[in-house]
Amino acid sequence: MIHTNITSPNFRLGEQLQHKIDLKTKPIGSLGKLESMAKQIGCIQNTLTPKLSKPVIMVFASDHGIAKDGVSPYPQEVTWQMVANFTGGGAAINVFGEQHNIDIQVIDAGVNYDFQDNSGIINAKMGYGTKSFLNEPAMSADLCKKTMQKGADLVAQAHVHGSNVIGFGEMGIGNSSSAAVLLNLLGDVDLEKCVGRGTGWDDQGLKKKYDILVRAVEKYDGGNNVENVFPYFAGFEIAMIAGGMLKAAELKMIILVDGFIITSALLAASKFDPEVLNYCIFTHKSQETGHEYMLKCLDADPLLDLGMRLGEGTGAAVAYPLVESAVNFLNQMASFEEAGVSNSDKIL
Amino acid sequence: MIHTNITSPNFRLGEQLQHKIDLKTKPIGSLGKLESMAKQIGCIQNTLTPKLSKPVIMVFASDHGIAKDGVSPYPQEVTWQMVANFTGGGAAINVFGEQHNIDIQVIDAGVNYDFQDNSGIINAKMGYGTKSFLNEPAMSADLCKKTMQKGADLVAQAHVHGSNVIGFGEMGIGNSSSAAVLLNLLGDVDLEKCVGRGTGWDDQGLKKKYDILVRAVEKYDGGNNVENVFPYFAGFEIAMIAGGMLKAAELKMIILVDGFIITSALLAASKFDPEVLNYCIFTHKSQETGHEYMLKCLDADPLLDLGMRLGEGTGAAVAYPLVESAVNFLNQMASFEEAGVSNSDKIL
Repeated sequence: MIHTNITSPNFRLGEQLQHKIDLKTKPIGSLGKLESMAKQIGCIQNTLTPKLSKPVIMVFASDHGIAKDGVSPYPQEVTWQMVANFTGGGAAINVFGEQHNIDIQVIDAGVNYDFQDNSGIINAKMGYGTKSFLNEPAMSADLCKKTMQKGADLVAQAHVHGSNVIGFGEMGIGNSSSAAVLLNLLGDVDLEKCVGRGTGWDDQGLKKKYDILVRAVEKYDGGNNVENVFPYFAGFEIAMIAGGMLKAAELKMIILVDGFIITSALLAASKFDPEVLNYCIFTHKSQETGHEYMLKCLDADPLLDLGMRLGEGTGAAVAYPLVESAVNFLNQMASFEEAGVSNSDKIL
Repeated sequence: MIHTNITSPNFRLGEQLQHKIDLKTKPIGSLGKLESMAKQIGCIQNTLTPKLSKPVIMVFASDHGIAKDGVSPYPQEVTWQMVANFTGGGAAINVFGEQHNIDIQVIDAGVNYDFQDNSGIINAKMGYGTKSFLNEPAMSADLCKKTMQKGADLVAQAHVHGSNVIGFGEMGIGNSSSAAVLLNLLGDVDLEKCVGRGTGWDDQGLKKKYDILVRAVEKYDGGNNVENVFPYFAGFEIAMIAGGMLKAAELKMIILVDGFIITSALLAASKFDPEVLNYCIFTHKSQETGHEYMLKCLDADPLLDLGMRLGEGTGAAVAYPLVESAVNFLNQMASFEEAGVSNSDKIL
């Protein structure tokens, strides 16, 4: 059993935050989701003047045994090649991280490749890829627990270095198959709705992927309990992210939730401790079919819906300025009184 | 008749831009709307390496005769008070402009107040508010033409100073009533769908506003031609913005379209010359009821839908980093070949 220690944000501060928001020089409620986000962040940080410091996106990479069974159109070596691209600065997440001064950390959670020590990649390798869950558990329960703990340790380090807002990204050929089965079993959603085109399958490839996952789920007999489901179907990166999220919530960090894979880690994390959800900002809705259902499971309404489905944490990165805008208006806008603007008597 | 001189973006470059996008280290199409935006901007600037320079949001303010007939819960003096707030830096648009290094220019298009010369406000006053279109045209056709020309001149100045991307904002108690009637007559949408809560009417106030606008439209007998509709129902800020948009398109600037009021100016501008629409990026969907129908008229699918309805150009400001992200990925991401990443044979 995973031990968690998450306490609630201070929701009692909500009323005072709302009052501060309502005195700003704007019609009541007119900043929409930026207002609810400002309130949430204030409650998390237990202050009327919240601050975002040292934003970081941790991109966890790993390989998946199931990839060798043909669930992805890309060969497995793309995982390590893309990780190398991250360190070279040429990937989408690098571009958006640089744009918004977000520190991008790249973690080898279990890639089937040996990176050089001077690569800039954080070595947290739990193995050379998972086993294929078509035939056996991806990892043992014990290894899953260790993997989650490793994620927690890495997040705790970022917190020590001053980060109070964290996004998670991923790279791992085959990981949309893990996420699909996690949604199926933990979210009680029909497998057909959970399986999507991933990095870009055509209809035939999608059918093949679906058929493989049907076989995998049929063979599995561990029920819906997360303690059984998660080691069997997760990848190292997904487990590490789930552990990291639980730790981030414990440390009262703001969690930027990205797309399908990252949300699958959160779905699992929320089964270990639903309190984690109070620390989450859902940044975007992925075009990957299953994400819509996953978001419904978590009662989430993301900031962006741009038809993106790239992974790497790119949704979290491009949405980050909106989170900053929420904090900025709360701290910087004048009140009606400060600005000498007449308020409306009619406004509630 | 308004003279326009807009030529099309170079759509012939679209194929080359798409090819460049498709070679980036990401699954085909996986950046969604960021990709279509990158392509649009490339075509507008006629280059495979577009650049955004000196972004500016021009906030046009004016008063409306109709405000005195009770269409808004706020008193008319809020217009000049908020304009003073813009120059004091305390409004939402200031906060978001500063966050994204967007120059905020404040223009007095016809506020019912005399600002001091050293206020920092650009004086383009066409009058002390329009006349109430409940009883007579808001302005004459000649004054409307002059107002549009003034907007064009101001945009041309920004272009001379190096801006190639421009947003428009507005402030004017009563202007959602102008926008509603413009949508009704130019967009052929039932008036009931066009009239919303504006800055925050309750049900009773909304009914009152609707009844006033019904009377105004019943009295008007100029038909649906923009040449007649626009002077009768526009405000000075709306007319100035429409003229500014037509000039911006002529100068091949990227136009960031904000919410209900700004889109009403664009709706009118598009009736003068539909080519203006090819230069527009729709930044957000306002919570103001009529905006949805207005966007449908223009076949527009905005970047953000955050339940915002503040005006001032705030939607354009908070969405601007997404426009930057589109340009950045196009210029900065590595190709599969550059990064040494295997592409998929299966990807189309």
